Amino acid sequence: MSAAPSRRTRVKRLPERGSYDRATIDAILDEGFVCHLGFVHDGYPVVIPTAYARSGDTIYVHGSAGSRMLRELAKEIEVCLTVTLVDGLVLARSAFHHSINYRSVVVFGRARLVEDQVERAAGFEAVVEHLVPGRWDDTRLPNEKELATTRLLALSLEEASAKVRSGPPVDDDEDYDLHHWAGVIPLQLTVQPPVPDPRQDGSVAAPRYVSSYRRPSQA
Amino acid sequence: MSAAPSRRTRVKRLPERGSYDRATIDAILDEGFVCHLGFVHDGYPVVIPTAYARSGDTIYVHGSAGSRMLRELAKEIEVCLTVTLVDGLVLARSAFHHSINYRSVVVFGRARLVEDQVERAAGFEAVVEHLVPGRWDDTRLPNEKELATTRLLALSLEEASAKVRSGPPVDDDEDYDLHHWAGVIPLQLTVQPPVPDPRQDGSVAAPRYVSSYRRPSQA
Repeated sequence: MSAAPSRRTRVKRLPERGSYDRATIDAILDEGFVCHLGFVHDGYPVVIPTAYARSGDTIYVHGSAGSRMLRELAKEIEVCLTVTLVDGLVLARSAFHHSINYRSVVVFGRARLVEDQVERAAGFEAVVEHLVPGRWDDTRLPNEKELATTRLLALSLEEASAKVRSGPPVDDDEDYDLHHWAGVIPLQLTVQPPVPDPRQDGSVAAPRYVSSYRRPSQA
Repeated sequence: MSAAPSRRTRVKRLPERGSYDRATIDAILDEGFVCHLGFVHDGYPVVIPTAYARSGDTIYVHGSAGSRMLRELAKEIEVCLTVTLVDGLVLARSAFHHSINYRSVVVFGRARLVEDQVERAAGFEAVVEHLVPGRWDDTRLPNEKELATTRLLALSLEEASAKVRSGPPVDDDEDYDLHHWAGVIPLQLTVQPPVPDPRQDGSVAAPRYVSSYRRPSQA
């Protein structure tokens, strides 16, 4: 499956880095877990980081019913949701060609306020499971009051595009003989040993989904 | 120095997490190197990841004069620039209180197109030095043509705020006796060994600023 580029999603700058292939888009969305959600409020742009999950062709974002962001987004206004993974710093021989290796997805559309109770329950589960697979069934599930104070938004992947830069630096031909070191400093989001809540006695061992936690690409 | 909260920067949701202290704001901006820049284009929001650097009270962003983003931003329109650092996944006993430890900065304002040649040169240097301190003097510096095709934008830190969540999960009192593991899975952006450009022969050793590269908080 492939999302056809719309006027908005067509990658205009360095189009050779663009992709509308859903496998590429999905892999980036599934690796990340914080998106930057942009919307227009009182005429000016607002960009807020927030957790999300992909489920099929939909991205779910949730938050407090009292938050400014959720109140605005519940009006089903236009949003732009961007997820960026940083893979490395690209050191070219020329200052001009320095770059960053990254994978990003941009999704445009109107977020839909989810009101159906079955989809709401599935959406909340998806967000927790996207952060830590296996966790949902090992928690105290949401009660009525918590559900009532939480909003769930759904954004279709219909207008999505990916942009990827990878590999070594690209210098101008005449610069390759210069004696500056060139290459990539790779960066990786790594998992450190879990830190138990100090208010929990030692009787609860870290479950396997915690002690062996990895993001998908590192699993 | 402290940026007073404006109508836009006042942290409304969970205000105890908000900060207008410049030391807090600067430390986050200096640790990160990719921002998400939001602006309004044809009435809809656009959020683009891009490199940046802080220099004193100013954030610099640069890009190709041909890019959609730079063409729009050169009109000195309102932007929202957000930098987010992810520190860990917070596993509470209740699904509802799951969270992410993070540090973020949001800056509102109108980006100014830098035309003064001295400030332009300093801004380009700041962006490269922010990515890799020590690198600028070890590159082939920009030539006339490269300078002519690059735009530099400056955004004041006047309207900036930080938001930070750290530490263990916070559960409802009655949930602390539940037998679900609770704690934090820390995450860290780590530096992997440098990968030399395959087009460079082995005669250029990686300089110290590459082989011992760290982000500021890990130095």
